[in-house]
Amino acid sequence: MSITVVGSVAYDTIETPAGRRERCLGGAATYFSLAASFFTNVRVIAVVGEDFGPEQEAVFKARNVDTRGIEHTAGKSFFWEGSYLENLNEAKTRNTELNVFAAFEPKIPDAYRDSEFLFLANIDPVLQRRVRESMPGVKLVAGDTMNYWIKDHRPALLEVLKGLDVLLINDTEARMLAANNNLVQAARAVMALGPRFLVIKHGEYGATLFHGSAKGKSGERTFRTPAMPLEAVIDPTGAGDSFAGGFFGYLASQPELTPGSFRRAMFYGSVMGSFACERFGTERLEQLTRAEIDERFHVFRELTHLD
Amino acid sequence: MSITVVGSVAYDTIETPAGRRERCLGGAATYFSLAASFFTNVRVIAVVGEDFGPEQEAVFKARNVDTRGIEHTAGKSFFWEGSYLENLNEAKTRNTELNVFAAFEPKIPDAYRDSEFLFLANIDPVLQRRVRESMPGVKLVAGDTMNYWIKDHRPALLEVLKGLDVLLINDTEARMLAANNNLVQAARAVMALGPRFLVIKHGEYGATLFHGSAKGKSGERTFRTPAMPLEAVIDPTGAGDSFAGGFFGYLASQPELTPGSFRRAMFYGSVMGSFACERFGTERLEQLTRAEIDERFHVFRELTHLD
Repeated sequence: MSITVVGSVAYDTIETPAGRRERCLGGAATYFSLAASFFTNVRVIAVVGEDFGPEQEAVFKARNVDTRGIEHTAGKSFFWEGSYLENLNEAKTRNTELNVFAAFEPKIPDAYRDSEFLFLANIDPVLQRRVRESMPGVKLVAGDTMNYWIKDHRPALLEVLKGLDVLLINDTEARMLAANNNLVQAARAVMALGPRFLVIKHGEYGATLFHGSAKGKSGERTFRTPAMPLEAVIDPTGAGDSFAGGFFGYLASQPELTPGSFRRAMFYGSVMGSFACERFGTERLEQLTRAEIDERFHVFRELTHLD
Repeated sequence: MSITVVGSVAYDTIETPAGRRERCLGGAATYFSLAASFFTNVRVIAVVGEDFGPEQEAVFKARNVDTRGIEHTAGKSFFWEGSYLENLNEAKTRNTELNVFAAFEPKIPDAYRDSEFLFLANIDPVLQRRVRESMPGVKLVAGDTMNYWIKDHRPALLEVLKGLDVLLINDTEARMLAANNNLVQAARAVMALGPRFLVIKHGEYGATLFHGSAKGKSGERTFRTPAMPLEAVIDPTGAGDSFAGGFFGYLASQPELTPGSFRRAMFYGSVMGSFACERFGTERLEQLTRAEIDERFHVFRELTHLD
């Protein structure tokens, strides 16, 4: 089944202990699409400037990602500059230029309308809601957000949460959204705002899926995937979006959404997040094969299973 | 099989967001013994003052822990005061009084000499080494240490590491000991110092077992256990020592030390650490049953296994 994703397609300048890269292709929708494309058909909605050319287009095409929803306008693409020199788990933003993204009005191509899965990557919740409402027939809607929207655009974000089946956020965002430091209590509070499923990402420690009312014993309705213990984290940019792509892409590839498919989706999410960190930008995802993905899935099983 | 443990038996004054307790029974050897006692016979070597009376003795006796190696001397027992008000994952020490511990000279009762397992809890590495050398016939030796010994008593600690089969430390300690921020690289560097097995504890995110040379693909010789997502962390004091007790106690209960027994030991360690946090001090461990432990073990399996 097809996923439509709306989000940023951008250029990133990244500095990590492993080096520096100028103006890599980046953006949440880019990482999500590339990661999800190993599992299912992906269709992107985004806006880019005149600096987005055939070379960038080719990265999507090589993974069969549908780019008809990428709008080309006058000006420059969204640009972000960040550093992981102090902390590999959290980028320090040095510069953000919205550029053409400032006036982004998502338009949904007719060819995308039969998508059964919708992913609302981290953008203005007003836009997330608009896209959500334009695609009422989808089977499963997932989304991401960030501290900025949680703090300063809460009412708009709360409207988005009402329409989500799955929310994917990190520890800090979950605690901030729920105003509660205990993750189990925070998860319950966040699910009360709408999403039936909540994935809390713990960076290098993996992620936890909370589902249902999470009442009763705390282990009963949760699932934890580890992250890969990596010998060298070259660049964590896009790891969270690649997790989302692996997770949601795998779900979209399944004939039925069972508890088992959600568990495997968590593993595939973590697998894709780990690959994203192995090279700068999208380099690793561009060269990846499905065989490598499945091999790492089995390493994850070895890493966590008793027998 | 029997474990001999050497370490502190102490009084703790603890403050957490859930409240404050004055002079609870504590100390690494206490938590370790109580946790391990659910799996095997445990024998303690420690020193206490005149403030350690029948009421404290009874806590060990109720779990069939052999206390003949607890030396009673004039003075007061080791005392620690700490606060978790700022960070539930890391205590802020407010006060430490070594008291009778300052002149501790571990003496090994003859009745302990047939122990096949030895645990060197976090004490002066000079004493750890002395106990290790006094019990050359043991089958498996594990130990713990802390930032203070790593920073200021490194040569003595390095001697201890040469005689250890298993070292259990946390993320910060592993990075400090190896002078390397990448945990996989740090693990390899620490194992090169002696221990064949290294357990790195990640607090609320679980723990990773590294074993063998850890060469080849990074997932091949590692195992991750999650921690329990707890709805209320009342007091994390002793969680690491309880992890060690569950881990090592389970290993000592096994007829053979197979990769499978190490994996299950990691789960039992994490199970015991999670119980320790549910009440102040040793309260939860004192009231625990083996049935509750095995029930939580199964919750851990549910929490991590694909099917």
